[in-house]
Amino acid sequence: MGAPPKVPAGEIAVDLAAIRAAHARIAPYIRRTPVLSSEALDSEAGATLFFKCENLQKIGAFKARGACNAVLSLSDSEAARGVVTHSSGNHGAALAWAAHDRGIPAWIVMPKSAPAVKQDAIRSFGATIRFCEHTVAAREQACAAVQAETGATLVHPYNDWRVIAGQGTAALELLDEVPELDAVVAPVGGGGLLSGTAIAAKALKPSIKVYGAEPAGADDAAQSLRLGRIVPQTDPRTIADGLRSSLGEKTFAVISALADGIATASEEGIVRAMRLTWEKLKVVIEPSAAVPLAALLEGSLQLRGLRVGVILSGGNVDLQRLPWQA
Amino acid sequence: MGAPPKVPAGEIAVDLAAIRAAHARIAPYIRRTPVLSSEALDSEAGATLFFKCENLQKIGAFKARGACNAVLSLSDSEAARGVVTHSSGNHGAALAWAAHDRGIPAWIVMPKSAPAVKQDAIRSFGATIRFCEHTVAAREQACAAVQAETGATLVHPYNDWRVIAGQGTAALELLDEVPELDAVVAPVGGGGLLSGTAIAAKALKPSIKVYGAEPAGADDAAQSLRLGRIVPQTDPRTIADGLRSSLGEKTFAVISALADGIATASEEGIVRAMRLTWEKLKVVIEPSAAVPLAALLEGSLQLRGLRVGVILSGGNVDLQRLPWQA
Repeated sequence: MGAPPKVPAGEIAVDLAAIRAAHARIAPYIRRTPVLSSEALDSEAGATLFFKCENLQKIGAFKARGACNAVLSLSDSEAARGVVTHSSGNHGAALAWAAHDRGIPAWIVMPKSAPAVKQDAIRSFGATIRFCEHTVAAREQACAAVQAETGATLVHPYNDWRVIAGQGTAALELLDEVPELDAVVAPVGGGGLLSGTAIAAKALKPSIKVYGAEPAGADDAAQSLRLGRIVPQTDPRTIADGLRSSLGEKTFAVISALADGIATASEEGIVRAMRLTWEKLKVVIEPSAAVPLAALLEGSLQLRGLRVGVILSGGNVDLQRLPWQA
Repeated sequence: MGAPPKVPAGEIAVDLAAIRAAHARIAPYIRRTPVLSSEALDSEAGATLFFKCENLQKIGAFKARGACNAVLSLSDSEAARGVVTHSSGNHGAALAWAAHDRGIPAWIVMPKSAPAVKQDAIRSFGATIRFCEHTVAAREQACAAVQAETGATLVHPYNDWRVIAGQGTAALELLDEVPELDAVVAPVGGGGLLSGTAIAAKALKPSIKVYGAEPAGADDAAQSLRLGRIVPQTDPRTIADGLRSSLGEKTFAVISALADGIATASEEGIVRAMRLTWEKLKVVIEPSAAVPLAALLEGSLQLRGLRVGVILSGGNVDLQRLPWQA
C-alpha cells in the first residue's frame, strides 16, 4: 500500500461547507441510498463493514451526485447554453440525467466503440452524442469544439471542484448514519469519489482513516502517491472499467493531502468480491465497486477488527454474461 | 384474477396488535429492510411502485420474520426442547437461524434431493438435517418422529399463527414508511406472507387493496379462492420454487376473508420481471419475488396510476446460471 508523501493542502478548493451546500442542492433529486451490512461478509473480512449503496443511486452510480451538483451550480444563463463532457461510462449518463432534470441541453463525447446500450441510455435522457477517436487528445478536442459552437460548460468527470463536492455527499450521508466508523474505503479511478470522501470524512471526524482501492492492473493512483506526481494510466488491464482513468491535478492534490493510502486488488480478487457481494448482500454491483472489498479480503488493506465504511460505487453491468461465468 | 367469495373471518387468530407485538419481539434480530423505487420500473408498469426489499432481510428472505417470531414466542421450557420443521427452502434456513440466535436446537426435515448449498446453509447455523422421501406424508411423518423423540415444537412454514404474525411485520414497516399506498401485492405460495400482509395492511388502512400473485403454472391459490375450498397444488410447473406449496387452512381463511384477488404470471413474464428488477433496481431477487411485478407488467393485475407496494420476498438464487441465460 502506497503511503502518501506530505503535500501542502493549499490548493484544495472544496471544504465540508461546500459539500454540505452540495448536499442541500442535490438532495431533492438524488436518492438517499441505504447502508447495508452482512454478517457473512464481516466474517470473511474480519471487520465490521457498512456498505453505502451508491449502486442504488439514480443512474446506478454515485456519479449522479457530482453531475447533479455541477449542473445545479450553473447560473441560469450558463445553464441555458448546456453542458458537455467526455465519458463512455457512468459520468456521461449522470450528466445527461442531471441536464435533463434541469431542462438544459447536454453533449456527451464518446468513442464510436462505446456499447450501444450506453449510447441508448444517454439518448434516453435527450442528450446528444458526439463521437470521437479513442485518444485523450481527440476527446478533449471534441469537447472544445462543442464548447466553441454552443457555449456549453465543460463538466469534467472528476477534475472539477463542483463534481468533487457532489461526490463527497455520499460520505456525508454515510457518517451521518454510522458516525462510529474507524475507516472509509472508496474505489479510485480519476479520484473524484475518493477526494470528496476524504474531504467530508476527515472534516467530520479527524481521527478517521480514508483509503482508496484500485486494481493492481491499473495502479496509477498508488504509483502517483508513491512518486509524488501524477503517473498517467497508459495501459490499464482490469475488468473494473470505471477505474481506468488517471488522476487529475485537483484529485491528486486532495488525495495526496488527505488519503491514508491506496490499496490494490487482483483481478481474481475483484471478481470474487463482486460475486460475494451479490450473494451475501443481494445487490448488483459492477466490478469497480468490488475493488475495496477485494483489497480487504486479499489483505492489501488490513483493517481487522475495525468498523469500515465501504462505498459501493455503482451497479451498471451486463447481466447477460457475468465475469465468474467462464 | 380470481375474485374471492365471502367467507366469515371468525377463525382468524392474528390481528394488528399481534403483528405489532411480533414486530417488537423480532425487531432487535431482523433487519428493517429498505423500500426502493425506480422510475424505469414505474414507467414500465404505469404505476408508482414501492419495493419492500425482503431479499435484503436476514437469510435473504422474509421467512426470517415468521421463524424468529415463532421461536421467540416459545416459553423457556418449550424452547429448551428445540424446534422442527420441513422445508428445503428459505423457511428451513430461517428457522435454523432463529433457533441459533436463541441458542436452542433445530431439526430441519428435507428430501435427500435438496441442493448441497441449502443443506450447508442449514448446518452452518448448527441445525440438524433429517432426510425424508419426497412426499407430504413422508415429511409429516419425519417431523412427527422428531417431535416424539425430542419434544421439539413444530413450526410450520406458513400454517402457523406465530409465523403469519411475523410475516405481517414487513407490511407494517412498509405502510409506516409509505402510508399513501393504494395497494400492496405479495407473492403467494403457502400464503403466510400474503396472510400477514393482508391482516396488517387492511387494519392499518381499510381502503387499501391487497393482492396475491402466483405463477400460472402453480395457480392453486387463485383456484382455491374461486372454488371456496383449498385446492391442493399437486403438479406445480414453475421456476418460482418458493411458490409451489398449497394453502393451509389458516392461510386460506385469512386470504378468503381479506385478499382482494389473486393474479397470475407466466413463466416468461416471471423471468423478464426478475431480470428487470436486477437491471433497474440493482438488487438480486429470486424468481418467486418477481411474480408480483410480472403480474403487473403482464396486465393480470391492473393497477395503473396507483401507488403500489410490492414485497420482494427473497434473493436466494444460484448465481452460476441465471434463468435468462438460455
